[in-house]
Amino acid sequence: MADSIVLVSGGMDSAVTAAIAASVGTAAFLHINYGQRTEARELKSFNAIADHFCIRERLVVDITYLKKIGGSALTDTSIDVPDGDLGRQDVPLTYVPFRNANFLSIAVSWAEVIAAKNIYIGAVEEDSSGYPDCREAFFTAFEKAANLGKRPGADIKIATPLIHMRKAEIVRKGLELKAPLHLTWSCYRDETLACGECDSCLLRLRGFHEAGAIDPIPYRQKATL
Amino acid sequence: MADSIVLVSGGMDSAVTAAIAASVGTAAFLHINYGQRTEARELKSFNAIADHFCIRERLVVDITYLKKIGGSALTDTSIDVPDGDLGRQDVPLTYVPFRNANFLSIAVSWAEVIAAKNIYIGAVEEDSSGYPDCREAFFTAFEKAANLGKRPGADIKIATPLIHMRKAEIVRKGLELKAPLHLTWSCYRDETLACGECDSCLLRLRGFHEAGAIDPIPYRQKATL
Repeated sequence: MADSIVLVSGGMDSAVTAAIAASVGTAAFLHINYGQRTEARELKSFNAIADHFCIRERLVVDITYLKKIGGSALTDTSIDVPDGDLGRQDVPLTYVPFRNANFLSIAVSWAEVIAAKNIYIGAVEEDSSGYPDCREAFFTAFEKAANLGKRPGADIKIATPLIHMRKAEIVRKGLELKAPLHLTWSCYRDETLACGECDSCLLRLRGFHEAGAIDPIPYRQKATL
Repeated sequence: MADSIVLVSGGMDSAVTAAIAASVGTAAFLHINYGQRTEARELKSFNAIADHFCIRERLVVDITYLKKIGGSALTDTSIDVPDGDLGRQDVPLTYVPFRNANFLSIAVSWAEVIAAKNIYIGAVEEDSSGYPDCREAFFTAFEKAANLGKRPGADIKIATPLIHMRKAEIVRKGLELKAPLHLTWSCYRDETLACGECDSCLLRLRGFHEAGAIDPIPYRQKATL
């Protein structure tokens, strides 16, 4: 039985989070298909990252009801993924309503069955796209709800080791822990060459640039930073 | 747009909750298939109850990953549904790990998109099977997490109008509001004739008995109460 469940989307943040979890104990990996545009590419990254860490306990869950519910450019193909705008103050079109609570609920259900004590999620609050379900206050409140709603016994901890990191720090942490950044995928739009223009690409490229490192994945074009 | 989303399993408690929600505003109904044994029968009840209340906004969601995760007699057919034991103190085998958080997360995602202000769930804490995710403290904590994790704006309320009711009071409230109790299904085991022996049947039958009313659904046998 694993000590921890790690939510692994296949993106850079989740790979670094997985490296952190794997450095302190045994891990089970959870990947969630919520009907996002780039799911096939993300699942490929998930399996490659899980192979890298020799993870035996893997769970891939389908919650494509989030596509049916809609309300996001990531799940509704009639809404274009906008070019990135890292100065924006409002909630972006790529926000998937209350997605992380859906993810964490699944993780807690699984944790109850496999007796995992920690749930790792690579959410980033400060240097991020401004998603409300990436705020530390939400995770703290959800952890409390989880421990009141699950079977009595040892508390579950929701671990968010990247929550206050800037992207450059995440890149540096990933390089330090030898996280397989070359296996990750972050682009919201495309699956062969990263677009280099969406919020997720811009944040990632800026992180590598500020860390003085080269992003190992292929881009169609790279924004001037 | 509906004021409220009501989680409607198709059971008696959800039908009474729906009647309460419908008595104070407009409602959208949400039904969730989590791979439980009696889903086909429950879905039939859901649609019949929604027809009764003339509900246009209906969402049926599939989260059969809870069957893959297992850990419950309701989703794992290798674990028999035990005969009811209403005096039991521990968490019963029919507990589906952290199920209600999965339900509520879906409801909050949908509420964000359709701008519903309330989420009704017919959970019962006191006269119930002892599921940890039916405790009022859990719902209060989840509501707080929801309002910290969702898009900024008016708060969402998690309404649990039955939480402190005994089953007999629920029956009386249903009769008073003319809830369609004849359309509901509560049995954990069977889909044609209710078994009359599982926890859910025992609780329901005791409720009708104590309310001095006749349960209108067909039973294979009725426990002596």
